[in-house]
Amino acid sequence: MDYSDVLAAAGRIDGHVLRTPVLEVSAGVFFKLELLQHSGSFKVRGAFNRILSAGALPPSGVIAASGGNHGLAVAHAARSLGVRAEIFVPEVTSPVKVAGLAALGAHVTQTGAIYSEAAEAAAKRAAETGALAVHAYDQAEVVAGQGTTGLEIVEQTGGVDTVVVAVGGGGFAAGITLGTSGAAHEAGSMSGPRIVAVEPERIPTLHEALRAGEPVPVEVSGVAADALGATRLGAIPFEILSSPRVRSVLVSDEAIVEARRTLWARHRLAAEPAGATAYAALLAGAYTPAPGERVAVVLCGSNTDPATLTTA
Amino acid sequence: MDYSDVLAAAGRIDGHVLRTPVLEVSAGVFFKLELLQHSGSFKVRGAFNRILSAGALPPSGVIAASGGNHGLAVAHAARSLGVRAEIFVPEVTSPVKVAGLAALGAHVTQTGAIYSEAAEAAAKRAAETGALAVHAYDQAEVVAGQGTTGLEIVEQTGGVDTVVVAVGGGGFAAGITLGTSGAAHEAGSMSGPRIVAVEPERIPTLHEALRAGEPVPVEVSGVAADALGATRLGAIPFEILSSPRVRSVLVSDEAIVEARRTLWARHRLAAEPAGATAYAALLAGAYTPAPGERVAVVLCGSNTDPATLTTA
Repeated sequence: MDYSDVLAAAGRIDGHVLRTPVLEVSAGVFFKLELLQHSGSFKVRGAFNRILSAGALPPSGVIAASGGNHGLAVAHAARSLGVRAEIFVPEVTSPVKVAGLAALGAHVTQTGAIYSEAAEAAAKRAAETGALAVHAYDQAEVVAGQGTTGLEIVEQTGGVDTVVVAVGGGGFAAGITLGTSGAAHEAGSMSGPRIVAVEPERIPTLHEALRAGEPVPVEVSGVAADALGATRLGAIPFEILSSPRVRSVLVSDEAIVEARRTLWARHRLAAEPAGATAYAALLAGAYTPAPGERVAVVLCGSNTDPATLTTA
Repeated sequence: MDYSDVLAAAGRIDGHVLRTPVLEVSAGVFFKLELLQHSGSFKVRGAFNRILSAGALPPSGVIAASGGNHGLAVAHAARSLGVRAEIFVPEVTSPVKVAGLAALGAHVTQTGAIYSEAAEAAAKRAAETGALAVHAYDQAEVVAGQGTTGLEIVEQTGGVDTVVVAVGGGGFAAGITLGTSGAAHEAGSMSGPRIVAVEPERIPTLHEALRAGEPVPVEVSGVAADALGATRLGAIPFEILSSPRVRSVLVSDEAIVEARRTLWARHRLAAEPAGATAYAALLAGAYTPAPGERVAVVLCGSNTDPATLTTA
């Protein structure tokens, strides 16, 4: 995979996703407002790119396992393209989330005690029906689609030194790493911006993968687990994120909660915990930009109950 | 007043206010995200321009009457500039709002049963102390400051046929009328965009002023009264808005509530009722763009309890 995959994805998904705006909150500090994206997160970029890359689809359409942002994104993309979508979610998924998927026209199957069991059932079903499986982070088309966010960041800011982004399975950060390096290269810069990859202390998939030299299973818990709770980093993301350009940092759940509160109180932006995780790294000092450093902070998701913005 | 006042204001307040982003939600339909502005509304533009236009201030600083967005904006601007601010609010103002003003460092005086009594007390106090009075809408510097939003809309969209904006006392719509005409003229267009001035049916200050040929008092009620509840249109706004470019339309409270709900559900934007009023005109069909018409909808305020976004 390289920059050309991201460029191709941008052409493919143009008109299907929003070019989310950038807000300069102070001199040289930019928020990429990807939390205003269709379906409430960046995930539609990868979903559209995966589906539109596949050519003709079988009548069984597309299939994914996720009770969260990925499921919503696949359901949104499928409805938008007039394609059938089956979404598998574990039995613990809240009725509100199941109803949200159903409202997007998806056929929802609740099965398995935990996510991995639902994912296994989805894989089995896909083998039976021939439906196109859309993975949450470990597929080249998905990573390339998410990377279009990086192209936009470079264009909309006129270039930054650093991009700060949250990591779960790693597809988004990997895509942005590709998308920003290529665009920076084309703009005449010698290398792409630094990527600060931010994870909750309680879900350190990248941090542990970099230490071990390969993706390893981690325990998953904490306030952002519903969206960043991959049990191990994806293989494709690992290859891309194993780069001297990438710096892995961790933040506490308390810092994430505080960042989310601040985004509402000061900026009137409604982020879910995962969507505030990148900003938490700046607020809590896990990453401190140098004087004059130009920084883009990616706010990546808003699928949250707004009543909790002032209380949680 | 003319376009040059708006240009001068833009230079004066640059760096003090945010250049709020524009989001193209569908082809040719733009949201101007002024609800992400400092203090949660456009009002800081006028407040900064008024204060920065005044030259040296007396030790008594600035004074305003408002328990709402204008009060927050004046308090924010004063704190940011290191100036003393006194804000007069009526006795009915909620403790939460008074606390919010105090948290911004303002000296708050609660007096009078209704707003006009608080405003009278503020005027009396200003005469005693020599503090600079900042009006909510009927001062040239305030109108010019709000108009900088119009300059940005033209620049950020590359030009639109129509701007849809909510009206209370009229300062914002008047400023935008000036700001967009001048910028469009400089860009080589013969005239500025159409201005669709949207009011709640229950606060028709512009609608009644245009019918009567002069500002007249109206009854004030309904869901957006806290922010659009001027009892009559300002004299300066009336002069500017009495233009063939301006079309006055009314929307029901139900349409405003529905627009606010839609902004959250579909776009993840947290608007107060006044901030959703312009969008309500499109959703409810009070204004229907022609095919291909390029339209900017100004979302102007977000000072709201987010818990009510999904319930109210």
